[in-house]
Amino acid sequence: MGVIKVHGAAMSTAAQRVFTCLYEKELNFEFVPVDMASGEHKKEAYLSLNPFGQVPALEHGGQKIFESRAITQYIAMEYPEKGTRLASADKPSSSFLIWKEVEAHQFDPVASKLTWEIVLKPMFGMTIDPAMVEEYKAKLAKVLDVYEARLTKSKYLASDSFTLVDMHHLPTINLLMRTQVKQLFNARPRVSAWVADITARPAWTKVIAMQK
Amino acid sequence: MGVIKVHGAAMSTAAQRVFTCLYEKELNFEFVPVDMASGEHKKEAYLSLNPFGQVPALEHGGQKIFESRAITQYIAMEYPEKGTRLASADKPSSSFLIWKEVEAHQFDPVASKLTWEIVLKPMFGMTIDPAMVEEYKAKLAKVLDVYEARLTKSKYLASDSFTLVDMHHLPTINLLMRTQVKQLFNARPRVSAWVADITARPAWTKVIAMQK
Repeated sequence: MGVIKVHGAAMSTAAQRVFTCLYEKELNFEFVPVDMASGEHKKEAYLSLNPFGQVPALEHGGQKIFESRAITQYIAMEYPEKGTRLASADKPSSSFLIWKEVEAHQFDPVASKLTWEIVLKPMFGMTIDPAMVEEYKAKLAKVLDVYEARLTKSKYLASDSFTLVDMHHLPTINLLMRTQVKQLFNARPRVSAWVADITARPAWTKVIAMQK
Repeated sequence: MGVIKVHGAAMSTAAQRVFTCLYEKELNFEFVPVDMASGEHKKEAYLSLNPFGQVPALEHGGQKIFESRAITQYIAMEYPEKGTRLASADKPSSSFLIWKEVEAHQFDPVASKLTWEIVLKPMFGMTIDPAMVEEYKAKLAKVLDVYEARLTKSKYLASDSFTLVDMHHLPTINLLMRTQVKQLFNARPRVSAWVADITARPAWTKVIAMQK
């Protein structure tokens, strides 16, 4: 099927989802850095890979794929037998379907808003909005209460095995665990154990190393 | 596999996704209205169906499924041969994977924000924020530019057949086409033809009738 090329940036949480997936699958890939500082992702050459001008984009055997969660599903399906399973080989379980959407529609919008306020804004010299931080911490706490209850039923969110669902959480959890928000994760024993487990995975350690 | 029960509200855009899917699949279902005005969706009985306290939730053969896009995928996979295909019977194509995520992460956040500002806020007697409307109209215009280009390559977003991807857009498009925002759709010939096509589907007409 030819070379796998990932166009992206090591600091992009969306690109990190894809890198993690490729490391979990033990696949070789070529990382093509996109110079976002100079706006390369908004120029025509890159827009042919992703018309929304966002990283990452994948090239594989003539196919051009974008949206990080589409790329991870594509990889999981193209290489079912390589490395970690990540998704069931045939029909996905209803719990996989449910919790995949929960990450995308309940966890990520809240976690991404928090990382923007307390991680990225300070990096760009912008002022944090404390009311927004409190509002979104309260929202995240509610999501994590549901996760705590869910994790009494299975070791990981979709099942007793690590899947794409858990993997998709890693980049934003990694950023939030370096902030005051880590208390929200640590205060919940099963969530805390789950975070410790998934962030210790060798694939994730390799993605962290890419950022150095 | 037993009775299909949909807990929800006819006015909920997320519930409308599920109703449309069931009508496309020509499946009988029982609609169980959830009294959101009295906060029924935040009470314990309903939280056992969806721990996030949102509509809709599906019950089917002992399974409880939530998140509208998880429900539609579940239905499409449980009943591949019934009614409209909606998703490929085996491995989804990469374009299906891409455009499913585009709806969820590019279109819906923008379209939902606009429906909140210009459709729902007036219904609740709240004041529209004109700056927000302009900001999100500009964002929607950019998304629709990408759709216009995409629809030169296939009749529908994922392929030449109507799929879950197109279907997931229907509820918010329906609301926006009743507002000033319809100009953004109408100004783009392929987008405009696509909207006319998908909103004319008999399944969608039945969902509209449920709201009367």
